[in-house]
Amino acid sequence: MPPLSDAPVLKALAERVRPVDRAAGDATRAYLDTLTKPPGSLGDLEALAVQLSAITGQAKPDVMPPACIVFAADHGVAVEGVSAFGQEVTAQMVANFAAGGAAINAFARCIAARLEVVDVGVANDLPDTGSADNPVVNARIRRGTGNMLTEPAMGREDAVAALDAGAQAANRAFDAGCRCLIVGEMGIANTTAASAMLAVLTGHPVSGVVGTGTGINSVKLTHKISVIERAIDARWMDTSDPVEVLASVGGLEIGAMAGAYLAGAARGKPCLVDGFIATVAALLACEICPDVRGYLVFGHRSLEPGHGVALQALRAKPILTMDMRLGEGSGAALAFPLLNAACAMLREMATFADAGVDASRS
Amino acid sequence: MPPLSDAPVLKALAERVRPVDRAAGDATRAYLDTLTKPPGSLGDLEALAVQLSAITGQAKPDVMPPACIVFAADHGVAVEGVSAFGQEVTAQMVANFAAGGAAINAFARCIAARLEVVDVGVANDLPDTGSADNPVVNARIRRGTGNMLTEPAMGREDAVAALDAGAQAANRAFDAGCRCLIVGEMGIANTTAASAMLAVLTGHPVSGVVGTGTGINSVKLTHKISVIERAIDARWMDTSDPVEVLASVGGLEIGAMAGAYLAGAARGKPCLVDGFIATVAALLACEICPDVRGYLVFGHRSLEPGHGVALQALRAKPILTMDMRLGEGSGAALAFPLLNAACAMLREMATFADAGVDASRS
Repeated sequence: MPPLSDAPVLKALAERVRPVDRAAGDATRAYLDTLTKPPGSLGDLEALAVQLSAITGQAKPDVMPPACIVFAADHGVAVEGVSAFGQEVTAQMVANFAAGGAAINAFARCIAARLEVVDVGVANDLPDTGSADNPVVNARIRRGTGNMLTEPAMGREDAVAALDAGAQAANRAFDAGCRCLIVGEMGIANTTAASAMLAVLTGHPVSGVVGTGTGINSVKLTHKISVIERAIDARWMDTSDPVEVLASVGGLEIGAMAGAYLAGAARGKPCLVDGFIATVAALLACEICPDVRGYLVFGHRSLEPGHGVALQALRAKPILTMDMRLGEGSGAALAFPLLNAACAMLREMATFADAGVDASRS
Repeated sequence: MPPLSDAPVLKALAERVRPVDRAAGDATRAYLDTLTKPPGSLGDLEALAVQLSAITGQAKPDVMPPACIVFAADHGVAVEGVSAFGQEVTAQMVANFAAGGAAINAFARCIAARLEVVDVGVANDLPDTGSADNPVVNARIRRGTGNMLTEPAMGREDAVAALDAGAQAANRAFDAGCRCLIVGEMGIANTTAASAMLAVLTGHPVSGVVGTGTGINSVKLTHKISVIERAIDARWMDTSDPVEVLASVGGLEIGAMAGAYLAGAARGKPCLVDGFIATVAALLACEICPDVRGYLVFGHRSLEPGHGVALQALRAKPILTMDMRLGEGSGAALAFPLLNAACAMLREMATFADAGVDASRS
């Protein structure tokens, strides 16, 4: 674990993360073969059930209700023209979340999730604080990051504050009874920050992790790669220190997501990871505390090329492959019913003995 | 369309199937680009939404509540030792469905589906008729099929009766208000029948479509291939007549599934297809009436090798790939929440204009 002596809150959080309960997972693996189905015939759903038992330590885990937390923040690097959309769209989309009209609102309702939007660093003023169903929490650390091309994205204290804000949001959800954590993000230019973090954390060439984000053309893509390469060169990071990487080229919402995963792991809750940005945040959390990895379930494989690199770094196989690239936590929310079904399988299926079905094989 | 002059019920059913509504699909495709997300960023979910609009003719389709219908029947060819389980397991599993303890019971509850089990040809006596939540309908045509190695699986009249029983079950579900059709099956040795049908319908070599089903070893697999090859040789089918293929080497539950898809298409309802057996039934339905194809959504890619062949014959890309091979409709039920989410996206997301989000791209 990296030294976190200057960040006692973060250090305490990481120290609360225990390895997942392998014995509980093994017990569930054995129990699955007693259920009325050919052994192994539910494939990856059985692997999910085993992991959910290992995460929760329970023979009959439950993931209902889930929490969807969307962290929003802006990125100073947006002024370099790396995104298809202007920075004002971040605040506009937060207003859309508050009104219940975004994709994550629709998908959160589908799974009866508790939704919370957390402003950890939106640059523009926000028009309202949402509604009871779609609250917007003000946890703003600063008005967007600095432009990583000319200065660090944020100071180290702000990076720690972002991680802490994410952990606090996750803990609010768990305290409200949520049993599964889905975090998403909104932040114009955040694929630029995530790509930079991923390149630094994995050593992968920038050109191999950068994609078109919300939809830029090939000229802008080349420019985006150049901006990230120059920013990384300019920042002089200790690449073995994840908090410094976050501070140098990261984003406030990405830090918050990582902090939420740390809290999820510390509380023994499954964390259902969304796409590219979320997986980079998950990688950051695992760099801070490797035992977080066991608590992560991966919802979907994004179209962003960097997602494959991030998934490989975490040895992760996502549940869904639907060629999506929206963010907001949308892919994770869409995958959630499979976690719930894995729990239902353990909780509700009869064993061969109970059902009087002859399990002997000829 | 093949001649169905000897089967007026089936002919009338096929004639009620209209091509899907391409104009409605195109309108939805255009509408999706006005919603608050980067165009195309929800990938396959957007394609699903387009198809659901084309199927239903509605701008805002709804798939709730879904119907799960499990057709059960036995196979005379089981005496040849092609399955890992004995034939008595079919009736035992129907009892398990009736008691609510099978995988499909758990998954149907997860999606609030109307579940019905239909006995179209179980060989053994059934202990009970289920409960209000898990009714078992007696529509038994005969006590299992004949052994296709020594005689046709069933007479042509029985094949038509199986198709009709399936259509009636689907219509019961639609009359009860169901808006999406999931059909599954239970029948020891039915991968043998489905493999034989698939080889005949596609001309694919038997060895390329046969798998281990519920889990046989390699010696039994070689035997299973030989049984199917010899059965096909012995039956002298007109391979261009799908009803004759069903009668010669098929199964009563496979015919019922195909009939259910025909009824779903005739009623303008999306049919969410499960794995190998279900896809062979879907292929049969499309051979009877090609316009059925547009109403089919494919839930998952099974581990059975024949499933890939059947999917290719239908040019189908399934939603989930989770290495499952259970049947019962389980894979389709697990994919259903994605259809519901596609509808929620259309129904609940705000447009850029409504939300005041700036959609202009730089």
